[in-house]
Amino acid sequence: MAKHAPVKITALDTYDIRFPTSRQLDGSDAMNPDPDYSAAYAVLRTDDPALAGYGLAFTIGRGNDVQKAALDALRPYVVGLTLDEVTNDLGGFAARMVGDSQLRWLGPEKGVMHMAIGAVINAGWDLAARRAGKPLWRYIAELTPEQLVATIDFRYLSDAITPDEALQMLRAAEPAKSARIEQLLAEGYPAYTTSPGWLGYTDEKMLRLAREAVADGFRTIKLKVGLSVEDDVRRCSLVRQTVGPDVAIAVDANQRWDVHAAIDWLRRLEGFDLAWIEEPTSPDDVLGHAAIRRAVSVPVSTGEHTQNRVIFKQLFQAGAVDLVQIDAARVGGVNENLAILLMAAKFGVRVFPHAGGVGLCELVQHLAMADFVAITGRKDDRAIEFVDHLHEHFDDPVTIRDGHYLAPTAPGFSARMHESTLVEYRFPDGPVWSEQTVAALH
Amino acid sequence: MAKHAPVKITALDTYDIRFPTSRQLDGSDAMNPDPDYSAAYAVLRTDDPALAGYGLAFTIGRGNDVQKAALDALRPYVVGLTLDEVTNDLGGFAARMVGDSQLRWLGPEKGVMHMAIGAVINAGWDLAARRAGKPLWRYIAELTPEQLVATIDFRYLSDAITPDEALQMLRAAEPAKSARIEQLLAEGYPAYTTSPGWLGYTDEKMLRLAREAVADGFRTIKLKVGLSVEDDVRRCSLVRQTVGPDVAIAVDANQRWDVHAAIDWLRRLEGFDLAWIEEPTSPDDVLGHAAIRRAVSVPVSTGEHTQNRVIFKQLFQAGAVDLVQIDAARVGGVNENLAILLMAAKFGVRVFPHAGGVGLCELVQHLAMADFVAITGRKDDRAIEFVDHLHEHFDDPVTIRDGHYLAPTAPGFSARMHESTLVEYRFPDGPVWSEQTVAALH
Repeated sequence: MAKHAPVKITALDTYDIRFPTSRQLDGSDAMNPDPDYSAAYAVLRTDDPALAGYGLAFTIGRGNDVQKAALDALRPYVVGLTLDEVTNDLGGFAARMVGDSQLRWLGPEKGVMHMAIGAVINAGWDLAARRAGKPLWRYIAELTPEQLVATIDFRYLSDAITPDEALQMLRAAEPAKSARIEQLLAEGYPAYTTSPGWLGYTDEKMLRLAREAVADGFRTIKLKVGLSVEDDVRRCSLVRQTVGPDVAIAVDANQRWDVHAAIDWLRRLEGFDLAWIEEPTSPDDVLGHAAIRRAVSVPVSTGEHTQNRVIFKQLFQAGAVDLVQIDAARVGGVNENLAILLMAAKFGVRVFPHAGGVGLCELVQHLAMADFVAITGRKDDRAIEFVDHLHEHFDDPVTIRDGHYLAPTAPGFSARMHESTLVEYRFPDGPVWSEQTVAALH
Repeated sequence: MAKHAPVKITALDTYDIRFPTSRQLDGSDAMNPDPDYSAAYAVLRTDDPALAGYGLAFTIGRGNDVQKAALDALRPYVVGLTLDEVTNDLGGFAARMVGDSQLRWLGPEKGVMHMAIGAVINAGWDLAARRAGKPLWRYIAELTPEQLVATIDFRYLSDAITPDEALQMLRAAEPAKSARIEQLLAEGYPAYTTSPGWLGYTDEKMLRLAREAVADGFRTIKLKVGLSVEDDVRRCSLVRQTVGPDVAIAVDANQRWDVHAAIDWLRRLEGFDLAWIEEPTSPDDVLGHAAIRRAVSVPVSTGEHTQNRVIFKQLFQAGAVDLVQIDAARVGGVNENLAILLMAAKFGVRVFPHAGGVGLCELVQHLAMADFVAITGRKDDRAIEFVDHLHEHFDDPVTIRDGHYLAPTAPGFSARMHESTLVEYRFPDGPVWSEQTVAALH
């Protein structure tokens, strides 16, 4: 071996990690009554034992094994690459997986295979940021416009945004970047909270949590809706009375309705000055969202299940949304989310990133903060979702203070879980699951 | 055990079957240069050894193991069901898998998990048709309108078609059904062929195969395009000269272009009186297809990669297509394809089913024929794709005569492969693959 042999990716280790969250009805909504928040977790090992990259795909339980199998299928695309091949060419690193003709057939660019590719791409970005000694938001923000654009696949986007337009937007932001970094470090980034609003909670628990949220500095609260319109009217009314007129209330139907049903239901909720209705119908239904938006005064939003940049493009082109969610672990990694953020900026659509689940807060904060610094310069007219679940399993958990995410300072993408979590929650043989199995037998 | 214990599903057996088609460049197109046609194959075993149901998801090689893992994840949803629970309630059989909240997170209703669910649903229909002693097309066609509508999930469709509208359409077709069955048995269903048009073929091979196709009775030929516009102009011109004005020529770009590029390219091909351009851009881009259709005179089509009924709905609503493909093995089985066929009929859009690959001809012929008998009564203004690959691996292969698919008469959905094929082509340990591995080492 040569003295200066380059550091290489030596392994892609994968894990099926599940948390038994269904036991408390945390995370219950109109479409997902009993989720067990889970992660198909990916680690890019290198022959430097101190350096690895971490990523994950988030699922809600069954099928997390399929998601892990999709991660396993990506091993030949990454093992053996040098560190330089990954971190100096994150565009190429992503394109080899996204563009592989045989894997592409399994989507294209959607569902299990795309989420797995996204997780491995994100692990590559984590590796690059760790190597550079920067938190990911800052690593992205300090790329040159040319470097950033080179990571993005503009295929299918050129009727909405071109690489040249993206370059111009990024160059326009350059002079303000260092001041924005200081501002972000001082102020944090606004958060909103969904913790009070799960459908499985009693009114009393919901109102107690809403009061606590306001006391904790949150200016927006989100409630799950969609099982019973009478319940939703009552819950919105109670929360509005409790928090007063100055705290924003958003609602989330988690894809529950058909188009006409959404319109009828939302007309019943128009009196509560809602900040937005999230996922009123199928995430695939661009024209349906546009029809709902034309028919009701509640601002319309979707995005956490939006499969890729092509659907986002159409949401923008059709004027189907007032704002969007992005999700760090559903689309093709940081690269595709950068394309989505650039389109949102061009079309003037505000982004309220989706989080919660397992590690989604840890991940997506970096994208919102990079957007503030390098793209839009906006943060006080938007907010990142915050749910107070499962952060204790991460090495670098999010920090919330006075309703704001504090900017991470540790290197990387914050997705690394504790080694003990990987042992304890491994499905089906970790002690949390094997003990449950034992308990069920008695 | 009771004397008349009901017959049950005892196992879901799954197989990773791959054919080394990349060695001949069969199936090469602008996006898929070297496919190894593959199937994730599913068998619903029962405790009647003479009765099983067969289904498959089609892939083009790598990732077929992920597709098989998704089939494996469905075992708990089907093993232990009685035969009656499957064959008397094919709507419920599908809904338990499609609607499972945890699995749904992996799509929803798209990609690897949805294709796996579709394969198992199709195996359920195969089982029902075999049990009834009918070919599937006839089994579907002889359901009452109420029975057929009960198999369909109308969620997210009601702004385009309601169950009542579907019932009315099906009832209107009732009186003609028996005469149409006789007509179908006598005449067959028109086929078109893609065999001459693969991009990897020389002009000489293309023209020889085109002449043979016309001599064999085909009235439509499809060519792959999208790598070089000059090549495409030459190939279209040569084939038009060879087949004359009365044979239709379609072209297929396999998602190669962005919207503006598609328009520019297709303007170069407008002089050849093309029957349609298939997949000019991303299958997710409803608005893109609509823009292309507005800009060029070539009829626009897509559908083989359209992930589910919600995207099909929008293609129809947006006037994005002149015609569509359906695929038997991409969406959620027969149930979802029936929803798509009913919408196509309502919107007056002709269907040219996608086939080729592994078993896609065998499967999709049944859907087109059921559509003729029970829904539209139309077949001579449309055609099913035919590619002459890999039929020899099936127990009940398609029969083509004078450019027509003959209606299958054996019970079932025609997806059952030979036992010897399952042994020989199993990846990675079947002899076809292990011998290749051995050869590669020398």
